Amino acid sequence: MREMDLNADLGESWGAWTMGNDAEMFDIVTSANVACGFHGGDPVVMHRTLTMARQKRVGVGAHPGYMDLWGFGRRRFVDDDPGQIEKVLIYQIGAIQAMARAVGVPVTHFKVHGALANATAVNASLAAAAARAVLATDPGMIFLALPGTEQEHAARRAGLRIAREAYADRAYRSDGTLAARDLPGAVLEDAAEAAARMLGMVLDGKVATLDGTEIALEFDTICVHGDNPHAVGMARAVRDALTGAGVRLRPMAR
Amino acid sequence: MREMDLNADLGESWGAWTMGNDAEMFDIVTSANVACGFHGGDPVVMHRTLTMARQKRVGVGAHPGYMDLWGFGRRRFVDDDPGQIEKVLIYQIGAIQAMARAVGVPVTHFKVHGALANATAVNASLAAAAARAVLATDPGMIFLALPGTEQEHAARRAGLRIAREAYADRAYRSDGTLAARDLPGAVLEDAAEAAARMLGMVLDGKVATLDGTEIALEFDTICVHGDNPHAVGMARAVRDALTGAGVRLRPMAR
Amino acid sequence: MREMDLNADLGESWGAWTMGNDAEMFDIVTSANVACGFHGGDPVVMHRTLTMARQKRVGVGAHPGYMDLWGFGRRRFVDDDPGQIEKVLIYQIGAIQAMARAVGVPVTHFKVHGALANATAVNASLAAAAARAVLATDPGMIFLALPGTEQEHAARRAGLRIAREAYADRAYRSDGTLAARDLPGAVLEDAAEAAARMLGMVLDGKVATLDGTEIALEFDTICVHGDNPHAVGMARAVRDALTGAGVRLRPMAR
Amino acid sequence: MREMDLNADLGESWGAWTMGNDAEMFDIVTSANVACGFHGGDPVVMHRTLTMARQKRVGVGAHPGYMDLWGFGRRRFVDDDPGQIEKVLIYQIGAIQAMARAVGVPVTHFKVHGALANATAVNASLAAAAARAVLATDPGMIFLALPGTEQEHAARRAGLRIAREAYADRAYRSDGTLAARDLPGAVLEDAAEAAARMLGMVLDGKVATLDGTEIALEFDTICVHGDNPHAVGMARAVRDALTGAGVRLRPMAR
Repeated sequence: MREMDLNADLGESWGAWTMGNDAEMFDIVTSANVACGFHGGDPVVMHRTLTMARQKRVGVGAHPGYMDLWGFGRRRFVDDDPGQIEKVLIYQIGAIQAMARAVGVPVTHFKVHGALANATAVNASLAAAAARAVLATDPGMIFLALPGTEQEHAARRAGLRIAREAYADRAYRSDGTLAARDLPGAVLEDAAEAAARMLGMVLDGKVATLDGTEIALEFDTICVHGDNPHAVGMARAVRDALTGAGVRLRPMAR
Repeated sequence: MREMDLNADLGESWGAWTMGNDAEMFDIVTSANVACGFHGGDPVVMHRTLTMARQKRVGVGAHPGYMDLWGFGRRRFVDDDPGQIEKVLIYQIGAIQAMARAVGVPVTHFKVHGALANATAVNASLAAAAARAVLATDPGMIFLALPGTEQEHAARRAGLRIAREAYADRAYRSDGTLAARDLPGAVLEDAAEAAARMLGMVLDGKVATLDGTEIALEFDTICVHGDNPHAVGMARAVRDALTGAGVRLRPMAR
Repeated sequence: MREMDLNADLGESWGAWTMGNDAEMFDIVTSANVACGFHGGDPVVMHRTLTMARQKRVGVGAHPGYMDLWGFGRRRFVDDDPGQIEKVLIYQIGAIQAMARAVGVPVTHFKVHGALANATAVNASLAAAAARAVLATDPGMIFLALPGTEQEHAARRAGLRIAREAYADRAYRSDGTLAARDLPGAVLEDAAEAAARMLGMVLDGKVATLDGTEIALEFDTICVHGDNPHAVGMARAVRDALTGAGVRLRPMAR
Repeated sequence: MREMDLNADLGESWGAWTMGNDAEMFDIVTSANVACGFHGGDPVVMHRTLTMARQKRVGVGAHPGYMDLWGFGRRRFVDDDPGQIEKVLIYQIGAIQAMARAVGVPVTHFKVHGALANATAVNASLAAAAARAVLATDPGMIFLALPGTEQEHAARRAGLRIAREAYADRAYRSDGTLAARDLPGAVLEDAAEAAARMLGMVLDGKVATLDGTEIALEFDTICVHGDNPHAVGMARAVRDALTGAGVRLRPMAR
């Protein structure tokens, strides 16, 4: 029987502001990437999110981002200093580790957020900084990586456990990387279509690319989104398609 | 031979802004209360401060405050929620613990900053929240407390190790508490006078109070300041007076 | 024919976070209190909100708060410095005035937000600081005040135009002030009941108080809320009750 | 008799943190670029800085930057949205205009800060957004521009008054632009040398470039720095050299 993990970014509310549909998503996913305070997720939100994860037996990952609250960690910076990024990540990981200890749930994976995810995918120095941050805080954490990117290379060089990530709503290119969002067809909108495609990816290990070829793709976890009702619907469709076909969903760390 | 600890708040720079004279103070004190990011001290500053502490063999404490950067953690809030404060503290303690692990220095004590120090001194629920935050993150940490305040009571009830704190530049009342800052004579300005008074406090365990009596006072660490050249001079005078009289200075945790 | 104004706090989204149901509320209210960046409302949100106000012919007010984003301006501070508050208000008023000029809509009233509203209601020095901020930026602005509070006194002493405010969802005491929120019955939950009560207040100038008496109450504008669907429903019920009884709704400044 | 303006970035303290040597610099410069709250300069600091400017009869400019307090507005972003930048600038300009009215001093020029200055120098859309922000808030303001950059082009197209800026501590290339900071010799360290070079630039309208040629250069204001004692010394040397040679220093707006 096949096994798979579904992950989503959760706990991204902040202060008086709510983001996403965490309560619903905790019934869909098996791993939660929990925001650590710098792009979203304050200490109170983190505690509440980690408590939900414990109750729902959902795996917990640190999900740190740039120190850029207004930009929600999505603004790309030029010329990041890797040493600075390493410290920014260590800080956030430590914060969530302590909160998770207080809640009584382990932090078992690590996934970089937003623009910093994009930066670490293409920049070897930044990816290495992320890997060092994991080594410094908990070398046992699983490093979520886009397959074939600098993220994966850096995590491998650092000897870290890796979970390769597929996206339920993103088209692929023939080299196995994600097609840029602004290309026509790069973002899947139809839940049923995305779910059917993902089921094929899980069962056959293959995906049709945006340029019309079919490629083999290995991955360990599927990223879904929960920031709006449409996204929640797609996440649920993916889950239902997988479980309906007998795929067993469980946190990546088990 | 008498032993004593000198502590100061350090690492309170933030972003492009520098605060205090940390380089000088690390040659004076034996324990550093290191800001944790919410009132001062960003991840880069924390890393640099902890590295200095390691090099100078100065003991390290977590020094968390309110989430109030503009107010530098000195604005007092009405009706704090103890559960919220507990989480705000856990977050910051976890962040500095991780950074300290990365630097290779242990975090051995805990001291609340600014207005939250004032609040925990007089409010039992907030003091209990602070004690819970220490229990949740590292029950071995020493809890710095103003003697006779709710801080000390809460730490004692929680079974924590306590270091009672005296102030080099503050006058005392006959009940052993600090005289309010706005009273005439409440803040000592003269370095030599403060140093001489502190030497007497350490050697004899007694201090003349603002209202003219003399009281016994037990304490384990002396708080000095480093935010301006005058404060650094007083800190140095206190250190010199103690070492000149044969008092051995060492971190409170040893 | 009676005339009345309905006001609500709008434009309180910030960065990636959405708050409230502004699109719906702009069809209900006649005056918008627009957040100015310190507790909510960033420059992009402000521009969008002011553009909606212009399109819907809704009157615009500056709605500044404490510099306390995490607390959404709802945390009460002890010992505010009136001079500091005055500058904090001038800054925010100037920001929204400029944005409104760029959008082509006048800023015609002023209403303090959250905990600063509570503080200025009871503290004469803070209320005077608010009045000075209005005098310094636009002495023609209407000062929204809770009747009988220091807000009203300060605005009157400063010679400002005043709009006295009634609350659709709050019970009154026999002295004409609002009953504290934590008292039983202090917050009206039923939309139809609130609408019927408000219609009576508008037509008869009287309201039944929480302690069972009936008092006379004069006011110029009614505050409604839009932060959740229930609140929007009550706002709509109040509007419908008033218009159904022939009360003409128009911005307070006209 | 020649006339010239000396400008510096001032008022960049924030909250509990002090930056620069404003008191000294106000005796040196004739125009102050005053930070507007987003990269430095809070409402209290702005009020104090504007009051000093009025007392010292120093011209005042709005000096807005990115919403990036931690990065002090010096982090460069990729893919800025010009419409967003325009609003970010309008907000800050409005804030300082109101504060300046309260203080009783006019805001007569505009200079973009840090990384946004670099971005507007090379990006025509961002430069146009800055020009629109000036048009929207006060079309009479003088737009400070690096000669030959998109800043100057955009300001000219918008029909704004322009002051072309020279740098006292930066080497020039033969095309009249500044040499990149990381090139050897690009940043002048010696105060006497910088002062002598600047005197020649003012009197002869010529400057020796980093690549050994001499070029003609027209400019209306000289930028000096005050963030450390060395910078203050150079600023003073430039001032003394100019006044010693009979150049009359006066704010650019007079």
